[in-house]
Amino acid sequence: MSSSLARLLQLLSGGFSNQSQAFDNPPLYAHILVKFRPLPQLAPGSLLLEQSYAISPGTPYRIRVLRAERRDGELIIHNQALHEEQRFWGAIEDEGRRRSIGNADLLPLEGCTYVVREVGEGFVGEVEPGCRCLVERKGSVAYLVSSFEIDSRGMRTIDRGHDPATHEQLWGSLAGPFEFERTDDYRAELPAAWLET
Amino acid sequence: MSSSLARLLQLLSGGFSNQSQAFDNPPLYAHILVKFRPLPQLAPGSLLLEQSYAISPGTPYRIRVLRAERRDGELIIHNQALHEEQRFWGAIEDEGRRRSIGNADLLPLEGCTYVVREVGEGFVGEVEPGCRCLVERKGSVAYLVSSFEIDSRGMRTIDRGHDPATHEQLWGSLAGPFEFERTDDYRAELPAAWLET
Repeated sequence: MSSSLARLLQLLSGGFSNQSQAFDNPPLYAHILVKFRPLPQLAPGSLLLEQSYAISPGTPYRIRVLRAERRDGELIIHNQALHEEQRFWGAIEDEGRRRSIGNADLLPLEGCTYVVREVGEGFVGEVEPGCRCLVERKGSVAYLVSSFEIDSRGMRTIDRGHDPATHEQLWGSLAGPFEFERTDDYRAELPAAWLET
Repeated sequence: MSSSLARLLQLLSGGFSNQSQAFDNPPLYAHILVKFRPLPQLAPGSLLLEQSYAISPGTPYRIRVLRAERRDGELIIHNQALHEEQRFWGAIEDEGRRRSIGNADLLPLEGCTYVVREVGEGFVGEVEPGCRCLVERKGSVAYLVSSFEIDSRGMRTIDRGHDPATHEQLWGSLAGPFEFERTDDYRAELPAAWLET
């Protein structure tokens, strides 16, 4: 039986689309693509994340390097931006460019680590407490409240921005979570060594 | 100086896109196209409306024939569906198919007339009072609360569905209005007779 960390990495290593949700609820949900893909040259548990509107997959609105690990008995996912991230747009579909991502390209996002727990056959993750994951949107700073649920069927996500002073919600998934179905499976790209306990 | 009705028809007869909003606020707003185009063979003030996700303009999620008129001193816009509407998908870009729309194809939507008032250089419209504009979404019936603002720069819209019994909001633009910029101008297709007072 595989470890929790191995199962989390296997569930994450895929592509996801909320096409059904978008087309069932026009015009309330943008059609979004989310992909997580192993980066074997980096520390164990490292995954490239790209999120894009389906209409423009080559210009992702978010690109990150996540790194899942077990620390002090709990599962966490570190969240890292990329220096000059436009260099890596589209790397999710380009093995050569994925392999070119090195440790020097990574920019840790303090306060933005996800804390993950097992729920049923899947996992639920939330940004760590502390209101320290600051993001800027059109000149305003907000702290991110973000969560995901993932299992073998798909993934649900909610992102919200809150005012650091008043804690008022400034933007985010008021209409409810994004609901993604799995479209691609990249589990085979996980190095075997990452899956050993 | 042209009449209010003529100016409303001229402002509506165009194409609109919220691309800027979508790309400034990922992933919160779907990228949507809205077009209104004159149907000269029908009663004066008749416009074909198509709304689609930008990613699939050929399969609109809403197609209507609107008809603007002055009645008892106020501007209103009648709202009509089309029988077997899939016959007309894409007609917005196909003059021959637009011309094939006849009165027998129209299905009046009771309770869904917009009441329009002039505000500044533009207009604001809202579904008539009475909670009678019923729409079904995934098996649940809601009444539509819908409004728009239009001027020479663009258009803003909000659609919400409310429970007919409790008046609770069931779905809709919680994240704020859609904000559209004008992309196409179809004023030249308005018959001159429609613009005379």
